[in-house]
Amino acid sequence: MKIPSVKGTRDFYPPVMAVRNFLVDGWKAASRRSGFEEYDGPIFEHLMMYQVKSGEEIVEQLFHLTDRGGRELAIRPEITPTLARMVGQQINSLPRPIKWFSVPRLCRAERPQKGRLREFFQWNLDIVGVADPLADAEVIFTTLDYLAGVGLGPADVQARISSRRLLAAYLRGLGLDESRLDAVYPVLDKKPKVPPDAFEEMLRTCVPEEAIAVGIHRFMELTDPADLAGLSLSDGTQAEAFEAARRELADVMRWLDRMGMGAYCRFDPGIVRGLAYYTGVVFEVHEATGSLRAICGGGRYDNLLADFGGPAMPATGMGMGDCVLEILLREKGLLADDLPTRRLDWTVCCLDEALMETAVEAVAALRRSGRAADMAYKPAGLGKQLKWAAAAHAGRVAILGREFLEDRRIIIKDMQTGEQKGVDFDRFLSGHYDD
Amino acid sequence: MKIPSVKGTRDFYPPVMAVRNFLVDGWKAASRRSGFEEYDGPIFEHLMMYQVKSGEEIVEQLFHLTDRGGRELAIRPEITPTLARMVGQQINSLPRPIKWFSVPRLCRAERPQKGRLREFFQWNLDIVGVADPLADAEVIFTTLDYLAGVGLGPADVQARISSRRLLAAYLRGLGLDESRLDAVYPVLDKKPKVPPDAFEEMLRTCVPEEAIAVGIHRFMELTDPADLAGLSLSDGTQAEAFEAARRELADVMRWLDRMGMGAYCRFDPGIVRGLAYYTGVVFEVHEATGSLRAICGGGRYDNLLADFGGPAMPATGMGMGDCVLEILLREKGLLADDLPTRRLDWTVCCLDEALMETAVEAVAALRRSGRAADMAYKPAGLGKQLKWAAAAHAGRVAILGREFLEDRRIIIKDMQTGEQKGVDFDRFLSGHYDD
Repeated sequence: MKIPSVKGTRDFYPPVMAVRNFLVDGWKAASRRSGFEEYDGPIFEHLMMYQVKSGEEIVEQLFHLTDRGGRELAIRPEITPTLARMVGQQINSLPRPIKWFSVPRLCRAERPQKGRLREFFQWNLDIVGVADPLADAEVIFTTLDYLAGVGLGPADVQARISSRRLLAAYLRGLGLDESRLDAVYPVLDKKPKVPPDAFEEMLRTCVPEEAIAVGIHRFMELTDPADLAGLSLSDGTQAEAFEAARRELADVMRWLDRMGMGAYCRFDPGIVRGLAYYTGVVFEVHEATGSLRAICGGGRYDNLLADFGGPAMPATGMGMGDCVLEILLREKGLLADDLPTRRLDWTVCCLDEALMETAVEAVAALRRSGRAADMAYKPAGLGKQLKWAAAAHAGRVAILGREFLEDRRIIIKDMQTGEQKGVDFDRFLSGHYDD
Repeated sequence: MKIPSVKGTRDFYPPVMAVRNFLVDGWKAASRRSGFEEYDGPIFEHLMMYQVKSGEEIVEQLFHLTDRGGRELAIRPEITPTLARMVGQQINSLPRPIKWFSVPRLCRAERPQKGRLREFFQWNLDIVGVADPLADAEVIFTTLDYLAGVGLGPADVQARISSRRLLAAYLRGLGLDESRLDAVYPVLDKKPKVPPDAFEEMLRTCVPEEAIAVGIHRFMELTDPADLAGLSLSDGTQAEAFEAARRELADVMRWLDRMGMGAYCRFDPGIVRGLAYYTGVVFEVHEATGSLRAICGGGRYDNLLADFGGPAMPATGMGMGDCVLEILLREKGLLADDLPTRRLDWTVCCLDEALMETAVEAVAALRRSGRAADMAYKPAGLGKQLKWAAAAHAGRVAILGREFLEDRRIIIKDMQTGEQKGVDFDRFLSGHYDD
């Protein structure tokens, strides 16, 4: 019986796995450079975990299941709720600040399309317990440090940065009631993703008041953070909140500049983020030409821990999926088509059936000494075996043939230089591999 | 709202994650030493994939779900069916032999208990396309090479090896019909796991024929492979099959001896394995005293690819879970209680609020140059910051204080030797970190 794979999932054959490892290893290295500690949660959580604060789109896309005990579970579509749960559970014993990273496997029942699959990997960075804008800047820095490391310069990618807190103060200042904000964010988030007419219609449905809609447009069209000062709000409280948020955003930009990432960063009031839980600075990294979806996004979410029954706790974070990133790196020529699926230090070429046991002994000894070593299961001609060794990116080849039968010598060939030399097999086997 | 984690799952807080990484990194390194290539599949497959050949126990323990398109899916309880599907799909284009490893996350709805959780990680090794006993030996070698590498000697763990093919020929030779074999294996597999009375009852229910049951006992009680010759079978065809299987098993043992692993290995006819798909040599590694469950198990499964609609293809493999292994390593004192959750090359100690921008600049420069570096979000006393640096396993500390304010010098402290020296900050910042 032939059974296909599930729609929207990937099979990671070794060459595909090599790409995934290239991405994931880079994410982990960048996280560790910035001092983040790795964590992970279970692949599923109680369903209601995602009904609290993740937003409608995510709830619709859940893979949910009922276990034999009748519990309603869901495969995780994001890891932030798990982070909030875990931090909340051990808040009194965790050393602060909490600077954590993770590379969870996530599932969302989306319509599979370019850059979107039903199963993917997502790099997550989070700093919990720090309200200082330096933490927001550090998350964005680490993201950009990774992207710079794989070869993407400021001409390739740009971090677009804004602030939910700024937007919220502005919207309240325009007269929009607090209770309507959560409905407005996903609409504004859609602006760059839909045609102008469609956006206009969504906005007018959500915000029928002409003056407020015009005010929203005015905000969304700013390009220079200096112009924020020109948006005077008549409500004193909101004007004050707006000014505090503006200063906070300026601080994040200033830190990023100081960190050497200024050229990557710009203010963009169109960055709103769809998820409900953001409260402060928000950002997305886009390809400079803007043709792809966001490469990553994140921001401050100071209320999430309290929403999950924990203490009030400032937090800021970032998520970057593997699918869009891989497309971008390929488009830019930054991802080789043939990443090695293995790299051997040695192969052993056995040219004679009578020497198979000796060859096996040599391979096992090399492996036990910590070297990556392999051999064919049957003796074969030297040409064929050298080709195989080259394909396995072998550093050196030990050849067991005529010389061994004559006087227990093997020929060692350096695959880089092509140099060959004869060495005594018993000396080799006793650990003198590198003489 | 406080939401707990799901029963039988684990939260990988950084110190727990460090243990998981220690295990997984070791598995991957041992796999690569032996020339295996990494692969992976999706977290879920079509439900029927596990109804084909995995055996009743696994099917009962599936976490299954129905997606929005009405497809019946299951979270993978093992990865071998996925391997069979993937190999079958690309059989004509895959280079052979196929030597693959994977470390999948798996879920089984078992009763959580010591060494068994509902979500776990499992190291898998598989060699597909090689019928030679050398492949079976190589899988067992790689398993033992890993265990030896973490410090488990032959006095700690033993590979118990037998053969399904041998057992099948013997059972058929006793007169048991082919169609009854699949029902007998899980019963024999239970022998070491249940009290003798309970086993006897299970055996008699499954095999009411006195003579056959006595014959089974005779086989199961052997300890020396040489005694296999004494089990004469009257059926000529079965006697021949039995002899072929005996030679094959002896070959595996001989190769393992040649590979330097003889002291770890012994024949044990009580090793049957519960899964339905094994066809040849089977093995388990147990703690020498036998108090824990098997640390790992595996064997030859030459029919599985054909069962999944692919071509007939010999295959042999191994699976090792993380739970029992972790318990064993802790019992043996081979797993530190406090594995580092991060290792910094540098911390930067900022002793004065006025120097925060400079400190941030230095940390960012270190990170951009590839070093792992971190600093506190607020200036603090030197003693406190050195303690924090030690906890983060920092190699060196750059101290920004009075000397910087005087003449732009920083103090570099080597955390290993305790040595300190003053260096010019601008020279340091320009990349001379290691002068």
